[in-house]
Amino acid sequence: MALIESVPNFSCTGETLEAIVALFQKHEGITVLDFSSDEDHNRSVVTVIGAPDPLSDAVFEAIKLAADTIDLREHKGAHPRMGATDVVPFIPIAGATMDDCIELSRRLGERVGRELGIPVFLYEKSASSPERSNLAVIRKGQFEGMAEKMRGGFAADFGPDTPHVSAGVTAIGARKPLLAFNVNLGTADLSVADRIAKKIRFLGGGLRYVKAMGVLLENRGITQVSMNLTDYEQSSLYQVVETIRFEAARYGVSVIGSELIGLAPMQAILDAAAYYLQLETFSAGQIIESHLLPGKGGDAI
Amino acid sequence: MALIESVPNFSCTGETLEAIVALFQKHEGITVLDFSSDEDHNRSVVTVIGAPDPLSDAVFEAIKLAADTIDLREHKGAHPRMGATDVVPFIPIAGATMDDCIELSRRLGERVGRELGIPVFLYEKSASSPERSNLAVIRKGQFEGMAEKMRGGFAADFGPDTPHVSAGVTAIGARKPLLAFNVNLGTADLSVADRIAKKIRFLGGGLRYVKAMGVLLENRGITQVSMNLTDYEQSSLYQVVETIRFEAARYGVSVIGSELIGLAPMQAILDAAAYYLQLETFSAGQIIESHLLPGKGGDAI
Repeated sequence: MALIESVPNFSCTGETLEAIVALFQKHEGITVLDFSSDEDHNRSVVTVIGAPDPLSDAVFEAIKLAADTIDLREHKGAHPRMGATDVVPFIPIAGATMDDCIELSRRLGERVGRELGIPVFLYEKSASSPERSNLAVIRKGQFEGMAEKMRGGFAADFGPDTPHVSAGVTAIGARKPLLAFNVNLGTADLSVADRIAKKIRFLGGGLRYVKAMGVLLENRGITQVSMNLTDYEQSSLYQVVETIRFEAARYGVSVIGSELIGLAPMQAILDAAAYYLQLETFSAGQIIESHLLPGKGGDAI
Repeated sequence: MALIESVPNFSCTGETLEAIVALFQKHEGITVLDFSSDEDHNRSVVTVIGAPDPLSDAVFEAIKLAADTIDLREHKGAHPRMGATDVVPFIPIAGATMDDCIELSRRLGERVGRELGIPVFLYEKSASSPERSNLAVIRKGQFEGMAEKMRGGFAADFGPDTPHVSAGVTAIGARKPLLAFNVNLGTADLSVADRIAKKIRFLGGGLRYVKAMGVLLENRGITQVSMNLTDYEQSSLYQVVETIRFEAARYGVSVIGSELIGLAPMQAILDAAAYYLQLETFSAGQIIESHLLPGKGGDAI
């Protein structure tokens, strides 16, 4: 069975978020992996996982609940936003391809446009034009400027040709899993971390799917290369660590540790072990637990 | 929820094995991970996993089916055996301790003795005396010599004081997961692989939970250190690989690859990744899939 993750962003906190989380938790076939809020941003993020059909249904219901509850005309927050449900990414986790997620985003987008009257813009891998793959391009102008932007020819992929009066517009798309990964350096010199960050990141000629910046960890008296890995299958954890190791050696600095923030697909970690252990053939099917995942095992699940 | 693995060995192949596998597959709450037979040994191994109660029930039913079907008085095979169901290990996989498995083995042993009239010997971590932790000590004399051995004072832990007339006796116990792991060397010189195997294994003063031997892979023109890791939590995959690396360096030989045979618990592989990536804090809970295992997630499962 295909497992897809979704990380919808809602322009709310507090009781509205609680209702949304409760909706997901009650939905059969959906597991809530995480949720968090930022009061300053007046924004919440929920991480859920499930098979395509229940996931699509659950996210639709959450978008409907958000549209019924949140009025963007009265919404204030530091984070740019354009909709009650601002953005909905779908991420292939196991037994699902990027095409499955694109298909899912199109199906949900069509339904949201038709049943809820909310214009939907497809973004990232689902985008209908290259420029629209960049979420910032879609969100530019935000809720307040979206009516004029749409009148000016920036048509939605689905739904009406003008924003929903209180729920705005929503971006829906497919993307790869994102890893937040930091490598700690045995130096308090931020310029070293900065220079390594600039060498390892795509912008500086480094690894294609790595974004990086140097950070000072004052309480520990060390620095860190703080990264987002936007495609761990192509720019892998072991490549990142080994590249930072040889860049740091130039300054006589060692890698003293690392941290993975939040969640990661099992395959990202298995890939690292397979590289370092030099496993010639290895598949996730050799992991006992992989046989116990939904749809993989016998009638236990 | 606790997940326990069991790998019962049955003195049969063919249709009897098929019936046993079908029994496990039909049992609610049980997943069959693997099964295999050896005709020369006239013996089969089934790997199943589940929560303690359904697992105990399913294994009991399999032992009953084996006792009803197999007559050891007519059994021939190369592998030493003492029962229709020869040996039943329970292995903690997730959310279960060794004590849970010991408790499970005692409970099942008592039931098999009482309801089926088959004497049960507890072995490995469940053994009632240190010498009985060794399965070979229990099995010595095999089916044909067991009646005399028991009359001579080698009493079963549960059940009658004489073997079941056709199903013999059964060993039941708790043990750690076993990893079969081989490291390939860039040399065709078997004496190098032999010497490294002798240095890394417990018997030669090496790692406590490692059994090792040198093997020639003729078709590839290389050699291999072939190993069993009997406690990967204490003698880890990365320790094994790094130890072989520095031992091989003495001969100017490189590690050119490795292979994990069969199944391994996820934690064994995560531990290797965490070592090499220098992850300071990392838990299996950061793996998305870990939230989808039975009893871990929401109502998806």
